[in-house]
Formats: sequence, structure tokens, C-alpha cells
Amino acid sequence: MTRWKLILEWDGAPFMGWQRQDHGPSVQGTLEAAAHRMTGETVTAQAAGRTDAGVHALAMAVHVDIARQVDAHRLAEGLNALLRPHPVAVLSAEPVPDDWHARFSCLGRRYLYRISNRRAPLTLDKGRAWRIAKPLDEAAMAEAAAHLVGLHDFTTFRSTHCQSDSPLKTLDRLDVERVGEEVHVHAAARSFLHHQVRSMVGCLSMVGLGQWTPADMKAALDARDRAALGFNAPAEGLYFAEALYESPAA
Amino acid sequence: MTRWKLILEWDGAPFMGWQRQDHGPSVQGTLEAAAHRMTGETVTAQAAGRTDAGVHALAMAVHVDIARQVDAHRLAEGLNALLRPHPVAVLSAEPVPDDWHARFSCLGRRYLYRISNRRAPLTLDKGRAWRIAKPLDEAAMAEAAAHLVGLHDFTTFRSTHCQSDSPLKTLDRLDVERVGEEVHVHAAARSFLHHQVRSMVGCLSMVGLGQWTPADMKAALDARDRAALGFNAPAEGLYFAEALYESPAA
Repeated sequence: MTRWKLILEWDGAPFMGWQRQDHGPSVQGTLEAAAHRMTGETVTAQAAGRTDAGVHALAMAVHVDIARQVDAHRLAEGLNALLRPHPVAVLSAEPVPDDWHARFSCLGRRYLYRISNRRAPLTLDKGRAWRIAKPLDEAAMAEAAAHLVGLHDFTTFRSTHCQSDSPLKTLDRLDVERVGEEVHVHAAARSFLHHQVRSMVGCLSMVGLGQWTPADMKAALDARDRAALGFNAPAEGLYFAEALYESPAA
Repeated sequence: MTRWKLILEWDGAPFMGWQRQDHGPSVQGTLEAAAHRMTGETVTAQAAGRTDAGVHALAMAVHVDIARQVDAHRLAEGLNALLRPHPVAVLSAEPVPDDWHARFSCLGRRYLYRISNRRAPLTLDKGRAWRIAKPLDEAAMAEAAAHLVGLHDFTTFRSTHCQSDSPLKTLDRLDVERVGEEVHVHAAARSFLHHQVRSMVGCLSMVGLGQWTPADMKAALDARDRAALGFNAPAEGLYFAEALYESPAA
């Protein structure tokens, strides 16, 4: 039995999210089915984060246990061949110790949120970004974002379905950056509450549009009340960008 | 009657190309149908370039003549509303003189070709780039590309269906640039022969893989023989990037 760390990329559009579901396709189920077809084994995949329906991954860390002897190159190539035509790809595979865990060993998670700030509907980036037609004030957004960095009670930005024991989280980074006609939000923390990134981006968009001041963001955080929340930004702009571990993994 | 310059963006995947076709959807036909629905007029659209099936546009210049009085903002917004759900968007609209012509007034065209140089299949960029799994030597590709810049007989890189009077063209720019795991080829000229960019990129890929030397590219050009051609790179990596005109247009 070898435990493998896989880095996955996927287009979230056709999936109900990472987690296996009875009512529709999931990335986990798709990967486990490919691993089963390759090895004949019943494989359970664990990921660094459980993304929602429609959320993309640039580099999600996952682990699987496989008894069959296989090298890293053949494992990645074999899984990629069997994952077709689903938009999921194994970017890399490496053996890790048996006690390494994609979720519990993870020391940090990073997300990217892409806003396309233009009037015209999206064509090439349709389903890849959230379009906001009116001009966003990214400096005001950055000022508002700074209020959220650090250790806080993030109850305001937490889904009612969140299973976390505590609403206290340390947000390491929440940067707002204009890249041409896009506005990118980079979020990093050891872990996030359910819907936290999309909730924060939804409120940042209200600041960018002048509907909230940066001080309103601080007031919303301090309220520790879900009712103070603006709304969740849509899933299609969100990318799981990186999972951090002690290095080297093995 | 006002002549309008429109800048269009599109995802080429569902289209037979720019030009109106009897046997499938075209960008021209889609735009003309939207303009007809908006104005009740029979509108003919002219583009700076006639792209092939599957080729994308980041900023294609087009003109249309419309009798109905409408301002630029309402024209762009109205067309965009009627273009849905097709992946074509009007990025901008501006009135131009009656003798301005998207094709004949065009002083320069620029294309981008995206190669994704990685082993893993594409997910988010599927249909948006040409994947080449083996490592490309972009320095050798750049050396080979330099042989093609300037005034040459490009018969080797010309489709047998090309309708140009002459195979003589001046290639102003053919730059090869590595951008992370991608290799981008930037091509600029007053005009191109049919399939010229895809033919050049196909040959550049052979140089990048070590199957041709940069000198082989020179020899292929000098042969002025279609039989000396490697092959055409696939349409899905090609983007019409810019059309240049005397400024201001009006």
C-alpha cells in the first residue's frame, strides 16, 4: 500500500463540488472511479478542501492509498487517460508517508477570486470569472479587506451549514489587485469557514461599487451576525489555488 | 445611415469561423442576425480578418451600416443582449466615416498563439490552447522564428485554398515567449496568407521538439513549396488579437 499525494486541476462547472454526492457528479467520485478502473481497488480520496459546486481548482492537494505497485509517472498518466472526458487532470503524483493527510496535514490554503470588471458579457472567460459591469474602486476594496486580516470571529461570513467548531479564524492575507480589466482577490489562511471567501468577496464587491464604505466592512465583521452579510459572490469566480504542507512531504 | 466600428470578442469553439456559412453557425451570421433583430434592417458585417473554424478573437474589428439612430452605448448593449447565449460579445462600438472599412482600411493584424507545454490534459484551458506534452525549447523556436521575419515568399506556409494574389508578405514580428507552463507565439503583419500563422506555429513546434533545427525552418521557407511544410497547428490555440488602423478612425 502506498499513499500518494496528487495535485489536481479542474473546471468546476459540471460538478456538484469536491465531495461525493448521490444526486450528481463530483470531483471526488470522478477521481475514485478512475482510480478503481486503473487498479481494481476501492479507493477513497481525501482533499485539502471541500469545494462547493462550480468552484474551480488550480492545484488541489489530494491523497489516495493504492496497493498496486505503480510509479508516479504511470499513475498520473493512467489516471489522466481514465479521467477523460471529465475536466479533471492530475498535474503531479508523489509518494508520501502513510500518516500524511491531505486535509489534516495541511498548514495553509490559498484561494483566488477572479472578478471581470467590464460591461461586455464574457465569452472566453464565461464560467471562469464573476462579471461586474460597473467600475469597481479597487483601492476602497483593498482598504476594506485590510479590516478582515488577522484573528477574528468570522460569524458574519459563515454559512449556516458550516461544520467548523469555532467561528474564530486567522486570515493571513486578503489582497485586492487590479489586473487589466479584472480584479483579483487573493485569500490565504490555515483554514476557512464554509463560504467564507465568497462571503468576503461579496462584501468587497459592495465596497467596490460604493454601496458600502470600508468602515461598513469593519462594522459587519464586528456585528458577528450572519444578517450583516451582503451576499455570497458566485462560485464560478472562485479557484482553490494552493495547499501548503511541511516540506518535503516525504 | 451610420457606419459603426465594433470590436468583438468570441470563443471560436462553436463556430465554423467568421464567414457566413450554409452548413453551420458563423460569427458573421450570428452578429448579423442580432443586428437584424435589433434594427429590423438587413445588416452585412465586414471583419478585418476571416478566421477559420475554432479560431478565437480577443479584439476583432468589424464594421456594420445601420440606418436607425442609436448611440454607441445602446448599440453595444442591445447587440450583446441579443447575441446571448452565443459566446460573442461587443466590447466597444464607435461611429466611423462611411469610407472606413474594417478589412481594407486595416494597416496591421496581430495574432496570439497559445501552446500549453505540459503533460497533464487541459481542463480550464481546454479548447483555449494547444497542448504539447513534451518539453519545448523556446530558444530554438525563437531562433527559427527570426528566419521568417521580413519580406518573403511564404508559399511554404500557404493553404492551397489561399485566395491572396501573391505569396509575398512582410512578416513584421514573430516572437516566441515562455509564460509559465505556456509558450506564446506573437505574429504581426499588414496581412497574412490563409493558414500562415498556424503553418508557422506547426513548424515552430517541430523546432521546439528538436525534430527540426532552426536552419530547417530557413530551408522550408526557401523551398517555396507546400510539400516542405510540417503541418498546421490546431485552430483552438489561435487568437485574433488586434487590428490596427490610422488613428483616430473618425
